Amino acid sequence: MPEPIDFYFDFSSPYGYVAAQRIETLGLRHNRVISWRPILLGPAMKLSGNRPLKEQAMKGDYMTRDVPRLCRHDRIPFAWPEPFPVAALAPTRGFYWITEQNPDQAVAYAKAVYHAYFVDGRNVAEAEVATAVADEVGLDPAAFAAAIQDPDRKARTKAAVDAAIKRGVFGSPMVFVDEEPFWGVDRLALVDDWLARGGW
Amino acid sequence: MPEPIDFYFDFSSPYGYVAAQRIETLGLRHNRVISWRPILLGPAMKLSGNRPLKEQAMKGDYMTRDVPRLCRHDRIPFAWPEPFPVAALAPTRGFYWITEQNPDQAVAYAKAVYHAYFVDGRNVAEAEVATAVADEVGLDPAAFAAAIQDPDRKARTKAAVDAAIKRGVFGSPMVFVDEEPFWGVDRLALVDDWLARGGW
Repeated sequence: MPEPIDFYFDFSSPYGYVAAQRIETLGLRHNRVISWRPILLGPAMKLSGNRPLKEQAMKGDYMTRDVPRLCRHDRIPFAWPEPFPVAALAPTRGFYWITEQNPDQAVAYAKAVYHAYFVDGRNVAEAEVATAVADEVGLDPAAFAAAIQDPDRKARTKAAVDAAIKRGVFGSPMVFVDEEPFWGVDRLALVDDWLARGGW
Repeated sequence: MPEPIDFYFDFSSPYGYVAAQRIETLGLRHNRVISWRPILLGPAMKLSGNRPLKEQAMKGDYMTRDVPRLCRHDRIPFAWPEPFPVAALAPTRGFYWITEQNPDQAVAYAKAVYHAYFVDGRNVAEAEVATAVADEVGLDPAAFAAAIQDPDRKARTKAAVDAAIKRGVFGSPMVFVDEEPFWGVDRLALVDDWLARGGW
C-alpha cells in the first residue's frame, strides 16, 4: 500500500479551496489515499515573517484577479468572502475531532467548510457557523460545539499545526508525496508527474 | 498581427531562468512574439514589502530544493551560483542598450547571461562579467562597457523598471498577455490555455 498524499491547507486559503477540488482526482489516478490536514497559516507566517497576500501591495491586487480567474478556468464556483482572511480555528479544531471518529466524514466536513466560505460567503471562523456546517453534513451540533471548546481538542490542533511547521509547511496548499514537498495549487501538475514517474 | 507576450524577468531569478527556456516554445505555438523585459526585483520588493525568497525562513529552504528539481524535470542544466541573489544592474542596462539596435541579439544576450549565472556560476552582476558575456555573443565589449556606465542607459533601465512596477510586476517571471498578468513559471501552462482559448 503506497503512502498517502499529505494535503495541507488553510480553510481561509482560496488556493487551498481550488486544490481541494483537484486533489482527489489526483489521488485516484495514482491509487493514493489523500490525508487531509487543515492548518493555520498565521503561526507559520509569524515564524517565516510572511504576511497574508491581501496585505501585500501588488501581490494582493494580483491575487484578487487571479483566484476568480483560476476558478473560472476550473469551472468551480467562487465569490470573495467578507471578512477575508480569517483565522479558521473553529473548523480546524472540529476537523481533527471528526477525523478521530470518521476520516471520511471529516473530508466531507472540510469540503462543506470551503463551500460555505468561498461560495456562500459564510464566516466559517465563527464557532456558530462552523457548528452549523457540521450539522449540515450530519454531525451532532451539540457534540461538535463542545468539542471545539475542549482543551484537549485545542491542544490536538496546536500539535497538528506545530508538526506541519516543523515539517516545513509555510503555505497553502502544500502537498507532501513520500517526503517531497510541493507548494502551490499550480504544482499539482508536477505532483502528478512525480507520482507517475516515481520522482526524477 | 497579435500583440507580443511581455515576458518580465530578473537576471538573478532562478524561476526566470527556467521560464526563459520555456517561453519561446509557448510564443511559437501561438504565433506570438516574445517581448523580453529584464527588470530588477529589488525596487519592486522595496515597494511591496517583499524580500528575496532566500532570506525567508522555510520558503527559502523550499526554493533551494524546488529549483534544482524543476530544472531536472525540464532537463535543463542548473547550479546554485554564489553570490545569490545579486542586483543584476549591469546586464539589465546592457540588454536595453542592445535591444535598441538589435532585439534578436538582445535575446541572445539575455540567454547567455542566464547561462553564465545559473549554469557556469559567473557573477553577471559585475560589469566585467556582463561585458565578457556580451563579447561572447559577438558584441563590441568596449562599446558595451561604455553603454552600461552611460547616464542615458541608466535612466532608460530605471524607466523600464518603473514602468514594470506601475503595471503591477512584483515577481519573476511575470507574463502579460493582452494586459492579463500571470505570475510564476508554473503559470505558463495556464498562459498556454489562455492563448489557445483567447481567455475565459
